[in-house]
Amino acid sequence: MFAKFSFTVRACGVAGCVAGAAAAVAGWTSAEQNNHVMLASSAYMAQQITPNISLDSSAGDMRHRMEGLILRTQKDLCDALSKIDGKEFRVDRWLRPNEGGGGISCVLQDGKVFEKAGVNISVVKGVLPPEAVKQMRARGHSALKEGESLPFFACGVSSVIHPRNPFVPTLHFNYRYFEVISDNQRIWWFGGGTDLTPYYLDETDAKHFHSTLEKACRPHNPSFYQRFKKTCDNYFVIKFRGERRGVGGIFFDDMDQPSADACYQFVDSCAKSVIPSYIPIVKRHYRDPYTDRHRQWQLLRRGRYVEFNLVYDRGTKFGFNTPGARIESILMSLPLEARWEYMHEPEPNSPEGKMMAVLKNPRDWI
Amino acid sequence: MFAKFSFTVRACGVAGCVAGAAAAVAGWTSAEQNNHVMLASSAYMAQQITPNISLDSSAGDMRHRMEGLILRTQKDLCDALSKIDGKEFRVDRWLRPNEGGGGISCVLQDGKVFEKAGVNISVVKGVLPPEAVKQMRARGHSALKEGESLPFFACGVSSVIHPRNPFVPTLHFNYRYFEVISDNQRIWWFGGGTDLTPYYLDETDAKHFHSTLEKACRPHNPSFYQRFKKTCDNYFVIKFRGERRGVGGIFFDDMDQPSADACYQFVDSCAKSVIPSYIPIVKRHYRDPYTDRHRQWQLLRRGRYVEFNLVYDRGTKFGFNTPGARIESILMSLPLEARWEYMHEPEPNSPEGKMMAVLKNPRDWI
Repeated sequence: MFAKFSFTVRACGVAGCVAGAAAAVAGWTSAEQNNHVMLASSAYMAQQITPNISLDSSAGDMRHRMEGLILRTQKDLCDALSKIDGKEFRVDRWLRPNEGGGGISCVLQDGKVFEKAGVNISVVKGVLPPEAVKQMRARGHSALKEGESLPFFACGVSSVIHPRNPFVPTLHFNYRYFEVISDNQRIWWFGGGTDLTPYYLDETDAKHFHSTLEKACRPHNPSFYQRFKKTCDNYFVIKFRGERRGVGGIFFDDMDQPSADACYQFVDSCAKSVIPSYIPIVKRHYRDPYTDRHRQWQLLRRGRYVEFNLVYDRGTKFGFNTPGARIESILMSLPLEARWEYMHEPEPNSPEGKMMAVLKNPRDWI
Repeated sequence: MFAKFSFTVRACGVAGCVAGAAAAVAGWTSAEQNNHVMLASSAYMAQQITPNISLDSSAGDMRHRMEGLILRTQKDLCDALSKIDGKEFRVDRWLRPNEGGGGISCVLQDGKVFEKAGVNISVVKGVLPPEAVKQMRARGHSALKEGESLPFFACGVSSVIHPRNPFVPTLHFNYRYFEVISDNQRIWWFGGGTDLTPYYLDETDAKHFHSTLEKACRPHNPSFYQRFKKTCDNYFVIKFRGERRGVGGIFFDDMDQPSADACYQFVDSCAKSVIPSYIPIVKRHYRDPYTDRHRQWQLLRRGRYVEFNLVYDRGTKFGFNTPGARIESILMSLPLEARWEYMHEPEPNSPEGKMMAVLKNPRDWI
């Protein structure tokens, strides 16, 4: 079963680790169970979640095609980040023994270049409570039957990269596929996006980032970039402060047109644009000299990042309300350190103030 | 009008400061308006919010009696903390120009003993949207008319004290009075509580804290302490982690029996127990030697404090959803610094592990 993988065995060392229980489900050997082993493969960061399926990208069940896409995206990004940092990712493969499915959480913490970088994938099945169905209906999925619990499948890749140097922006992206079964019908959609959170404004970076995304969007629909750029600006808002968390990017949800294959191709382009949109920015700035002033500002903005993720982020909230969700994977998005100073307000003409101006009034970058 | 106060003039220096606009409402002189002045009195931390009312504690309109109570509680605690720290509180008096009411925010940041200590009072009027009325009805206030916006009045004192030394616990308390007008009827209730968040378990401290609260409760109703201790244990829970944020204390809401005066007397006892419950613990530990290990653990637990406040705390959420709310006063509860490490889990027999055991299974302390 594991013949094509070369394994790295890691001790989990965590009381709540589900690897033991999960191993039974996955059919691992008992020696591996006893060691709470974590597995890493050469093709992916760990063994795929759904056993015995082909992860061919070109055809077949969309669930399997997407599992392949998210595994490849995770592997490519982890490799790219490790190469820059010099430190390897910790890999935790976990399964949900009762609810079905699982995931692979890859975290590089306290590296030279990356203070905390998380790249997760998950492939989960479960039952949506009527309240969640109601919210999805309100977003336009009117084919979902009201007032009932409905079986769902979801898989996605989700990542937040918090670099150490305050001149390297934080990156977030997430690409996902969702299915709900209602009246024996399969209702499906894709969602996702990539967005950048700089601490200091570098217009060259912002332009490079946005134009890479625009190029990924263009072949699929000439209006996508502009539409999803606007959606992104409107989504990543800390409403009670009247400010965005960064310079945006693209964000879309509930995409089910014109066909599943076309949507998949679009998501594939987006996922493939992550590395070229971000890695050149990291390389340009990770050796920039900085002082305690820059670090303090970065920590304050990381506090804002925490505010957005805990108060507004839909994925995080969905995780909080999902029984058996792996909370450490959900909250790997939080920075290693953050700071809150009462009534901190940068001078309008300072570099920090110039960043704030863009967070209050988003700009066009192309 | 100001004859009985000695003033301290402070520049606000904040773009969003409402002092200028508010001054017009309060009838300040134009010179004071132009300076965005902040006022501190000798009797209270700043001039009372509602002009020209007697703050006598024994009789009269309950709104005014409570305004007196919260002003005195704020002043006494700020004085006690400043005396230990050596640093004075920054005092921001603010008014809501459109919505009515205002508050006094007192924050001592980056002190020798206190890393961040906030003691706020607010006295606000406004209109509850139907959704908020619905939630209050669900909590038992069935006399409130459904589906309508209703005028409300609320006043309270709210405080979070984050000390620097990891052996000094964080303190939180809040005492409040709420009125809603429905069908020309005045529906009112009191709420509040005091709770302690140690980083390392000291049983003597926990017992001292709880028995001081028990003594404050006892004369009013022999069942109050036990009931409100349990409510507190059930309220301050980070549900997605299955852990409490501290060793609890007391917590109650929707108290409207047996009479407004009896409720006021109870709240007055609780508010007066804050200093004797906490200050002796501060004095016992603020000079305790500690290492980086203790500091790192304190920062991780402060991350959990942020999680509770942003995700669960009802007062914080009420603030986020209140138009014109002063966000810096609401979020003064967040620590100066916090930390999130992926998969951090202390050894069960370590001092950190022993603290965790109590957070997972609350104990009786009396």
